[in-house]
Amino acid sequence: MRLIASLTLAAAAAVAVPALAQVSFQKPEDAIKYRQGALRVMGAHYGALGAMATGKAPFDATAASRHADVIQLVSTLPWSAFTPGTDKGETRAKPEIWQEEAKFKQAHERAVSEVGKIAAAAKTGSLDNLKAAWGSNSGSCKNCHDNFRKDQ
Amino acid sequence: MRLIASLTLAAAAAVAVPALAQVSFQKPEDAIKYRQGALRVMGAHYGALGAMATGKAPFDATAASRHADVIQLVSTLPWSAFTPGTDKGETRAKPEIWQEEAKFKQAHERAVSEVGKIAAAAKTGSLDNLKAAWGSNSGSCKNCHDNFRKDQ
Repeated sequence: MRLIASLTLAAAAAVAVPALAQVSFQKPEDAIKYRQGALRVMGAHYGALGAMATGKAPFDATAASRHADVIQLVSTLPWSAFTPGTDKGETRAKPEIWQEEAKFKQAHERAVSEVGKIAAAAKTGSLDNLKAAWGSNSGSCKNCHDNFRKDQ
Repeated sequence: MRLIASLTLAAAAAVAVPALAQVSFQKPEDAIKYRQGALRVMGAHYGALGAMATGKAPFDATAASRHADVIQLVSTLPWSAFTPGTDKGETRAKPEIWQEEAKFKQAHERAVSEVGKIAAAAKTGSLDNLKAAWGSNSGSCKNCHDNFRKDQ
């Protein structure tokens, strides 16, 4: 019970992290490459945690905690780079990102929140906690990709 | 004097951050995109701090501290993705990275150390400290790019 309470607190703290300072980009392609880079880094470390959560890789508490640090911070970065005028070029971003701004905001805020919960669980050093958090992930990555990312 | 001492301590703490847990990549191009993504994110936030340090952007202590968080963490990421077999494809990595491993390691460790010093200065909330750290940067980014990155 105490564990669940502290997990919830940790998750709440993670979610409360404010959005990071925005970066200004000189060219639209700089913003596109930046957000793709952040999503790529987040995806790699998220995948590493997922491999541990699903038994595809051995659980390593130290590594899990570090992957958690990365996803918690980097998950806050890509969104401010979806600025107007960055919908063309080498990007799979759908026009809906700019047409349905409120929906997109809600979707990425949900993703940051869910990533925060998984990160908090990973930092407890318990594989069971990580498994539980991973299992209760409601698919916010996929949801956002389905709605806002073009197929390859 | 006390400020310099605490800055030095903060920098030492930053430098002492251990390398992050390595990510495994299924394909060489995944490693290439990951390290490029991390370097791109680091470069963007490093540039944002540089703009403040050189008066091209107004100093914002909160934003500076957040940029510092990003560069401190993300600067540790790219290096483990320079694995054997990732020297071909869409990469500007020079063969020297794998031919002169010790020299490359020294160069990226120096870069992480210098980024750590700038991040520590940025987190003090003082533009003068940031300027001083920026000014005493010995060019470890450029050094590494000159030696280990192909021209466009």
